[in-house]
Amino acid sequence: MQKNTCNIYDVAKMAGVSTATVSRVLNGSDKVSPRTRDKVMDVVTKVGFTPNAFAKGLGMNTMHTVGILVPTISDTYMASAVAYLEKELVTYGYDCILSCSGFELAGKQTKTELLLSKHIDSLIYVGSTYAGNGKDIHTTNYIRRAAKQVPVFIINGNVAGENIYASVFEDEAAVYEMTGRLIGRGRKHILFLTDSHSYSSNNKKKGFRKALKEAGIDEKDKVLYVENDVYAVKEFLLSLEGKKIDAIIAANDDIAIGAVKYALHRGIRIPEDLEIIGYNNSYLAVSSSPEISSIDNHTAEICKDTVERIIRILSGEENTLKHKISVPCSLVERETTLRESEESAKL
Amino acid sequence: MQKNTCNIYDVAKMAGVSTATVSRVLNGSDKVSPRTRDKVMDVVTKVGFTPNAFAKGLGMNTMHTVGILVPTISDTYMASAVAYLEKELVTYGYDCILSCSGFELAGKQTKTELLLSKHIDSLIYVGSTYAGNGKDIHTTNYIRRAAKQVPVFIINGNVAGENIYASVFEDEAAVYEMTGRLIGRGRKHILFLTDSHSYSSNNKKKGFRKALKEAGIDEKDKVLYVENDVYAVKEFLLSLEGKKIDAIIAANDDIAIGAVKYALHRGIRIPEDLEIIGYNNSYLAVSSSPEISSIDNHTAEICKDTVERIIRILSGEENTLKHKISVPCSLVERETTLRESEESAKL
Repeated sequence: MQKNTCNIYDVAKMAGVSTATVSRVLNGSDKVSPRTRDKVMDVVTKVGFTPNAFAKGLGMNTMHTVGILVPTISDTYMASAVAYLEKELVTYGYDCILSCSGFELAGKQTKTELLLSKHIDSLIYVGSTYAGNGKDIHTTNYIRRAAKQVPVFIINGNVAGENIYASVFEDEAAVYEMTGRLIGRGRKHILFLTDSHSYSSNNKKKGFRKALKEAGIDEKDKVLYVENDVYAVKEFLLSLEGKKIDAIIAANDDIAIGAVKYALHRGIRIPEDLEIIGYNNSYLAVSSSPEISSIDNHTAEICKDTVERIIRILSGEENTLKHKISVPCSLVERETTLRESEESAKL
Repeated sequence: MQKNTCNIYDVAKMAGVSTATVSRVLNGSDKVSPRTRDKVMDVVTKVGFTPNAFAKGLGMNTMHTVGILVPTISDTYMASAVAYLEKELVTYGYDCILSCSGFELAGKQTKTELLLSKHIDSLIYVGSTYAGNGKDIHTTNYIRRAAKQVPVFIINGNVAGENIYASVFEDEAAVYEMTGRLIGRGRKHILFLTDSHSYSSNNKKKGFRKALKEAGIDEKDKVLYVENDVYAVKEFLLSLEGKKIDAIIAANDDIAIGAVKYALHRGIRIPEDLEIIGYNNSYLAVSSSPEISSIDNHTAEICKDTVERIIRILSGEENTLKHKISVPCSLVERETTLRESEESAKL
């Protein structure tokens, strides 16, 4: 029998199973024994078919694959976003393939080309680094070029252009509100710690500065840049000896953990003498003791929503979609902030 | 000008730059301004070339892409392994694409087919789940089938077959030694907590039981299965009220963090009254307070070694490679175990 000339009936016959069983194997159903699966796949391999070739043969006109680009997968928060996206895509019968671009433009461009060359139906960028610096159009044109080939989605970043869909977290509003709450509880020496100049980080800084300004608090030396490493943050805070600090808002949970370690080292009481707020509500926040109160940008929901939008677009519904959606954030209260009830008791 | 008929000189001319600049853009060099990059990529897109098409045109006969399969990317440890692999592959000019298979055979098989359909030069499986149950050959035949197409590497699992290369951590020896050390320090009520029946987990159990047996300690109710969730582990340990526990070895750091939370909740002193040993030496181990002593299986080195082996094979050196390498593990001592010096002081 010649390669690529047989169909699902031939495969079923050669493997001695029903076409329904062949279909189940190719569609990744769990309800096939390892032994039967093996029989079918041995035939599929022998006759030179892959499940994708089959899918095409059966009349589907896409590869059912979505590309995902992240700067780095070692970041807990990005890894969890990818996991959410993958989980959702699978429920719609879509596979995903991932690549890591780093934070430089060259990597963003070449990895975009890489994914596009793998016959993807859509491309998702995860992270505000992809939105460029917000000033130079040349730092985001690689996205507009990609959008000429497939619909593009950006999670936590906005890039204007045809066929580009953005979800933006309301980071500025969230940090503004949290800073205001801390000031309302009498905190005056609040620091904002960040490791980044990204779109997202800049919005957080804006919210922080706005709240300080409105309360008449001098913002000098309140926004500080740190390395994104638990020990580096701890050492940095220890080096600020003599500086009054009664609250810290961190741009991510890793930095917040460094702040916790600083406080434990110094014997500073959390949250009585130092309140700490993390960001991303990641797994790290609960790994810490005390557990970290963290701003949740509802990544799980955003990822679910993004996948639903992708499916709608790929079904030809692009005219009904907004090009940008904004998502409010909220604080998950744990052990590093005073609770409303405690606040009342304190008053 | 017709699509696909122009070469690098045409592109350089049309973009008004040198061929060296075109080459730099296509190879992902950082040393090109966003504006120049844009000019070149606009031409490349216009004439219908992708960098990969270029690479082929320049005489390279591979796609320079390696596929990586993990069960789930939300696992901190697997995410860090992927990050290490990616970083190493890039230094050799290789891209990687990732897919998540879940823990079921159906997913492992279909995602293997997916990656193979994306024209990869080699395939890396990360995690001992891919080694099957060690009994039924049908649970690993998908790997042998893949190995007929490209060289296959397994990190922390061994599958016999042509063109399959395995790295195996010496988990049994590591847990045997750690359990022995705890017993040597007078610990008698040691638990081993795991969430899995994987090849790796089974080896850890073996080492644990062997050490208990040699010391004449009854192993009944010492190996316990838990859900891989910090709070679930904490609640589980709290539910064992009345059971004497003076040491816990966890199959991963997540479980160890649950044990720390249990001890803090109960006011049990760590490490004086309860020693806790995690596994994987992941970022979670340092996020915890107290920081967790954790068994390091040297993932970074294994990933580096795996990539070097891939490059050697793709350069035609397969005859010089061992099909299986074993890697010893070691304990990174932090705050949840007694240190050698403290042990001496105690004696």
